[in-house]
Amino acid sequence: MAEPTPVVGTVRPGGRTARVRADVLRAAGDVLATEGFGRLDLADLARRAGVGKTTVYRRWGTVANLVADLLADMAEQSLPRTETGTLDGDLRANARLVQRTLTDPRQGALFKAVIAAATCDPHTAAALHSFYRVRIEEWVPCVRQAIERGELPADTDAHEVIRAVSAPLYYRVLVSGDPVDEAAADRAAAAAVAAARSGSFPSSATGGLASR
Amino acid sequence: MAEPTPVVGTVRPGGRTARVRADVLRAAGDVLATEGFGRLDLADLARRAGVGKTTVYRRWGTVANLVADLLADMAEQSLPRTETGTLDGDLRANARLVQRTLTDPRQGALFKAVIAAATCDPHTAAALHSFYRVRIEEWVPCVRQAIERGELPADTDAHEVIRAVSAPLYYRVLVSGDPVDEAAADRAAAAAVAAARSGSFPSSATGGLASR
Repeated sequence: MAEPTPVVGTVRPGGRTARVRADVLRAAGDVLATEGFGRLDLADLARRAGVGKTTVYRRWGTVANLVADLLADMAEQSLPRTETGTLDGDLRANARLVQRTLTDPRQGALFKAVIAAATCDPHTAAALHSFYRVRIEEWVPCVRQAIERGELPADTDAHEVIRAVSAPLYYRVLVSGDPVDEAAADRAAAAAVAAARSGSFPSSATGGLASR
Repeated sequence: MAEPTPVVGTVRPGGRTARVRADVLRAAGDVLATEGFGRLDLADLARRAGVGKTTVYRRWGTVANLVADLLADMAEQSLPRTETGTLDGDLRANARLVQRTLTDPRQGALFKAVIAAATCDPHTAAALHSFYRVRIEEWVPCVRQAIERGELPADTDAHEVIRAVSAPLYYRVLVSGDPVDEAAADRAAAAAVAAARSGSFPSSATGGLASR
């Protein structure tokens, strides 16, 4: 199908298709962060990205598909885990990364907008859950290594430990409104380590198995 | 000011004003739970509650005020804490109450709708935070009693322990999509106890002081 409007921009590695995707996803991220999920509109995004409307409709079809693709792209682009050599250090690095993301004006607003949309849109919820599955999986080896070093009980549910690091920070942002500062991040990491050491996250627990 | 429409319903303790409030708040809760925040409309709620539109506009003025009043009413009506005699038992009761609320079809949907609205409306966010302040305060004595019994370090931030019980359950509902079952509740309580015992929630930490 012919493009109704020529694509504006320089050629980047990955070619035209990758460039169109990057431009449209960036525009979608901008709208999410500044105006919210309800203001996303494929025709408007095509205009903002300088991309043909037909291209955008053909590629994504719906706003929900586009947001799912944005989350997939963010999962791919996300920072790799930090390995410090200790569980305390690794989980503190994880907590501080989550804290910085949630308090970053653009990223924080973007996540809040997507989380809000996910409460009433199953497609967006599925994309969100898949984003966090990727992110949790990225950090799981820190816990596995701590088990190998003998720092944690052998049957520790590694995924549950990583979730425990993030949970207090998301709770503050979304629910209680308490500050999400570096102290809160460090406390979240320390609490997760203490709970894991005491055997509070056994992999035999129902919720743990169900969430693998 | 005269009522344009007579109020339908039986007289209940608290009189006509209390009855109107109860009827309108129930209608607002119904709409929030089934259709979401975006569908709240004062004239529609007056009709659903069988109350004069003028009464509703005069009493609440805006949807945000009405939702704030709904949350205040929910905080007043909420169940008191359970005292089991041990920190483990008390926090498990707290976690299971949160778990039942979040998985209840009406209550769970209602909280998700308000939390989503709070991400983009500061007035609703303030009402939400105030709801959770009341609920956290209700359960804080469990931690204080555990400190007095010598179960926890003397400088434990009691509010932070209560937040730690809820956080993993809200994280599952809103963020990761993992199941919020009784096992998840019990694990959240056990992890909070273990972290508190190890001294992970000192009241001297910055975030703790700032959030009193």
